[in-house]
Amino acid sequence: MTNLPKTPFLDAVAGPSDLRRMNDTALANLADDVRAEVISAVSQTGGHLGSSLGVVELTVALHAVFDTPRDKLIWDVSHQCYPHKVLTGRRDRIRTLRQEGGLSGFTKRAESDYDPFGAAHSSTSISAALGFTVGRDMGMATGDAIAVIGDGSISAGMAYEAMNNAGHEGRRLFVILNDNEMSIAPPVGAMSKYLSSLYASPVGDLHKMAEGFEAALPGPFREHARRARQMVTGMQPGNQGTLFEELGFSYIGPIDGHDMSQLLPVLRAAKTRATGPVLIHVCTTKGKGYAPAENSADCGHGVSKFDLSTGAQAKSKPNAPAYTKVFGTALTVEAGHDPSIVAVTAAMPSGTGVNIMGERFPGRVFDVGIAEQHGVTFAAGMAASGLKPFCAIYSTFLQRGYDQVVHDVALQNLPVRFAIDRAGLVGADGPTHAGAFDIGYMAALPNMVVMAAGDELELMHMVRTAAEHDAGPIAFRYPRGEGVGIELPERGELIEIGKGRIVQEGSDVAILSFGAHLSECCKAAEAMQAQGVSVTIADARFAKPLDRDMIRQLLRNHRALITVEQGSRGGFGAMVLHDLANDGLLDGRCQIRTMTLPDRYIDQASPDAMYADAGLTAVDIAATALQAAGVEMKRTRARV
Amino acid sequence: MTNLPKTPFLDAVAGPSDLRRMNDTALANLADDVRAEVISAVSQTGGHLGSSLGVVELTVALHAVFDTPRDKLIWDVSHQCYPHKVLTGRRDRIRTLRQEGGLSGFTKRAESDYDPFGAAHSSTSISAALGFTVGRDMGMATGDAIAVIGDGSISAGMAYEAMNNAGHEGRRLFVILNDNEMSIAPPVGAMSKYLSSLYASPVGDLHKMAEGFEAALPGPFREHARRARQMVTGMQPGNQGTLFEELGFSYIGPIDGHDMSQLLPVLRAAKTRATGPVLIHVCTTKGKGYAPAENSADCGHGVSKFDLSTGAQAKSKPNAPAYTKVFGTALTVEAGHDPSIVAVTAAMPSGTGVNIMGERFPGRVFDVGIAEQHGVTFAAGMAASGLKPFCAIYSTFLQRGYDQVVHDVALQNLPVRFAIDRAGLVGADGPTHAGAFDIGYMAALPNMVVMAAGDELELMHMVRTAAEHDAGPIAFRYPRGEGVGIELPERGELIEIGKGRIVQEGSDVAILSFGAHLSECCKAAEAMQAQGVSVTIADARFAKPLDRDMIRQLLRNHRALITVEQGSRGGFGAMVLHDLANDGLLDGRCQIRTMTLPDRYIDQASPDAMYADAGLTAVDIAATALQAAGVEMKRTRARV
Repeated sequence: MTNLPKTPFLDAVAGPSDLRRMNDTALANLADDVRAEVISAVSQTGGHLGSSLGVVELTVALHAVFDTPRDKLIWDVSHQCYPHKVLTGRRDRIRTLRQEGGLSGFTKRAESDYDPFGAAHSSTSISAALGFTVGRDMGMATGDAIAVIGDGSISAGMAYEAMNNAGHEGRRLFVILNDNEMSIAPPVGAMSKYLSSLYASPVGDLHKMAEGFEAALPGPFREHARRARQMVTGMQPGNQGTLFEELGFSYIGPIDGHDMSQLLPVLRAAKTRATGPVLIHVCTTKGKGYAPAENSADCGHGVSKFDLSTGAQAKSKPNAPAYTKVFGTALTVEAGHDPSIVAVTAAMPSGTGVNIMGERFPGRVFDVGIAEQHGVTFAAGMAASGLKPFCAIYSTFLQRGYDQVVHDVALQNLPVRFAIDRAGLVGADGPTHAGAFDIGYMAALPNMVVMAAGDELELMHMVRTAAEHDAGPIAFRYPRGEGVGIELPERGELIEIGKGRIVQEGSDVAILSFGAHLSECCKAAEAMQAQGVSVTIADARFAKPLDRDMIRQLLRNHRALITVEQGSRGGFGAMVLHDLANDGLLDGRCQIRTMTLPDRYIDQASPDAMYADAGLTAVDIAATALQAAGVEMKRTRARV
Repeated sequence: MTNLPKTPFLDAVAGPSDLRRMNDTALANLADDVRAEVISAVSQTGGHLGSSLGVVELTVALHAVFDTPRDKLIWDVSHQCYPHKVLTGRRDRIRTLRQEGGLSGFTKRAESDYDPFGAAHSSTSISAALGFTVGRDMGMATGDAIAVIGDGSISAGMAYEAMNNAGHEGRRLFVILNDNEMSIAPPVGAMSKYLSSLYASPVGDLHKMAEGFEAALPGPFREHARRARQMVTGMQPGNQGTLFEELGFSYIGPIDGHDMSQLLPVLRAAKTRATGPVLIHVCTTKGKGYAPAENSADCGHGVSKFDLSTGAQAKSKPNAPAYTKVFGTALTVEAGHDPSIVAVTAAMPSGTGVNIMGERFPGRVFDVGIAEQHGVTFAAGMAASGLKPFCAIYSTFLQRGYDQVVHDVALQNLPVRFAIDRAGLVGADGPTHAGAFDIGYMAALPNMVVMAAGDELELMHMVRTAAEHDAGPIAFRYPRGEGVGIELPERGELIEIGKGRIVQEGSDVAILSFGAHLSECCKAAEAMQAQGVSVTIADARFAKPLDRDMIRQLLRNHRALITVEQGSRGGFGAMVLHDLANDGLLDGRCQIRTMTLPDRYIDQASPDAMYADAGLTAVDIAATALQAAGVEMKRTRARV
């Protein structure tokens, strides 16, 4: 390894307990070392650089003041956890972040005792911390609980529910609001405006609680903290309450999250004095201390490997446009044809590609913030008014709005279009972000049409089809990553609802693909054909309604029928089996197999490696098909 | 019909447009008539009396001031909609409320143009109203949107997300906070404390916005409204902001929701002057105007048919204890054996039966309010601390916490016990409350154990089994209503995970029941046996892990295997089919059928009538089994 930074203070640290023996100056030096180490590591691995750099001092201070791992430090979302991992016994593996077999990019209970509650989806930390707090109060072997949550994440309803409940419970609990005035995109919502106003307010806004804490500081720090607070906030002590106080929290802050001489005494005072729930408002800069990150539009939120001196990120050459971009472009084309098309995203305008539409039709794209529950019902309301909303939410995050899909959209048969990106396994983000369950949880709903795109051209057709489907709700799923490189027209074509397509006709084995594993199915067919087996490939397009005629035809004309989907059991294959069983067609003349994700979580790796782990490669498909088609002979003949 | 109230003002009203021609005194008289009519109707039908009586004046005032149905009036949860139904063309059917073929107990788009957005789950109204508002601003044929939401419902995260987004959007929008200091149980959470403080605050708390509105009132009303406000609130005008203002709303109130001389001028002023989002805080009394309701513990929240003069409710004689009570009692027994057992409910302590445990172990039952997302993750945090949480949430409401079940519980393999009440069809509450999807959405999750109770004794065993299952998450579902009347022991027994049981052995047909349709399966078996068919009945107990040995045995030894469950496709039957398909066992020697809820929503009726509608009676089961078992002979022989 070349170019490793010099980190003498960090080198002397074996674990958090060492921090508790260091003086404040040494802790500040340690923070500098941790920052250098994180930059160096992420330059090799890629990852969530900006948010990790923003909490370097906070991480050092928290471990120095609190008694981790007995005290439970819970990072919300946890993509800011790299400094924490460096300090908690995982420095030796920090350059394996997000790699196959390496450290997770998030906190993970299985990985360390210092990760008491894993995360990756936002806004769960306060709920979990309150749970630990109850455990402590009931005699479990656990100390204080500290949730660290960003200003974007705290705007989600779940965080509000948790604060509301924590305020009611009144138990000793620490919430650190890590306010970088940024979630991933520039923040939206009145909450962020409120937080900003705490800086800008011309008159006093700090509560006596904060003053009480300051009074508890050791002498030399007291005046310093007071002056620092006034410098940061421009505020005089006042008697006006804050939102957090109205929810029952004591509020301290804002303080400068990069200034150890503010962080350490405030955290120590809070630890000494708190009897109930305390919110400490810490202001940080995303990407802090690495100019290329600080200066980039997203503050280095998620980066590829990069050059340390320039910050230039390694760019992989795409072979084909990403599904996300194809979706965003196709949506924009449809929006140009129909002025009633609108789009909803939950804090993911560029992640979902609706920013492409937003550039051309800015008034018609709604970013509701991290608020999937609201976003889905907001879309339902727009549909009820006559608009044509596309609700673009990743598969894994749509789980957050599931009841709203059921109760507000499907039950009322409102034509909301669900664009479900990141369906299937997603690579480096690992199991927390897998889009594994949507086929089943959507196909179970009466009125819902459920499609999956076999390739990027199919995705264009589905965007067009969804735009023109006004009879009820419709969903279409597509994976993370690039398409297959097929040539794309200006605009997609209309697909008949409930009609699949035969991609290639054969006579021995039929592969019935639902979604983007179609290319893998084609590879499996090639391998079988090389062994003299004649293969039909069908693209189901619809999990609901099923193309029952096509499926019956496949059943009649083949010895084996294999369904393939990038999702868990209970989805497409289940719908096919139900349908055939209840028509009495499972008579064994055609053997059926359903290939799905297995009944376990798949750790991060490349998507290809994850699908290999899942038993869903072309080789697996061919092997399954040949085994199902029966004949011993085949089994020996075929070596795919 | 005897005992119909005299309602001359109401009799003269054909629809809301008539209200706009009435003077304020006549409107107050009309409200009295509406109240009498609602009391009379609900005395015959049963239903949500208390919340409906609380909004009689508000309903009249809203329809008098706003231009419904062009203006969109959206009732949150909507069990307070009976006065609204009386006034909007449904008076002639008001005595069919919640009956088969009658009016829904909730608002319903299919029922009336005056119901622009149906509801039944809480906290959706502001999101939907914001959607309509965007539609209006984009030229759709819709006027203003008004959301009416209770103080319980507004504490849910979803409502907060919606207000946060509405504050950011800044569009003209009306939210009526119907504050009766009561949701269903006494309210919990810091939010309710905050609302209460608005009355009690010794110093001023009303914003200049409210004064601005008051200034806009016609002269004679201005002083009156100002005095009324001060009477209600004890507040002087001040400059301190409210929570709602911090989210970007103009706040008006609190005003007396039973005083038309406050309601009408304030609503008119708001309608005239609003340019952005406005929150009008209206104080009401649940059960208002009917002493037996006002004086009951839950203010007549949900009542059976009752005697008009005394308020005495008709009591049906139970044949057996309700599943809910069996659960609550069994949980209390287990809690007595293990001090680490705790329980979580989301504002449903008596609905879920955890109040029974709360009476004996008050510090160990946590009511988190209407906050399923938080509740699930809070339970996960408690589990991570070493406690043994039972999370008791109805099937339909667990949809609200689905991502938390996936991301915080199942993925981390934390031993949270999900007690899923109201599984299957639920009767008078209709399709919005059906517990149709949980089998599929839970069984799809790696690590999750999924059980269903065949009867109330089985439920006791499952409570015990869940209590002692500390290896990971476990869920058990059971229906609304009474058990079958089986004798119950002091304490349930431990069930081996993944083991079903044979209830009766036969040789022709096997019925494999998952859950409480077991009794219906037994009836079907009796009918078939009467025709000379030998029937095996098995109680699967587990949808996950399946009892694969038992299922294979059933398959080998019968001509037909019928799975039966009170849930939708993609659930238990699907898991059985997947398993058999992938072992190549679907060879037609044993015909399989999966009986599930159909792919449509079932309107309210008695549960029996709903299951008949769904095609899931004993007759349906026997017919399906006989048809599957094949033989023409059987079909003519069997008349079940």
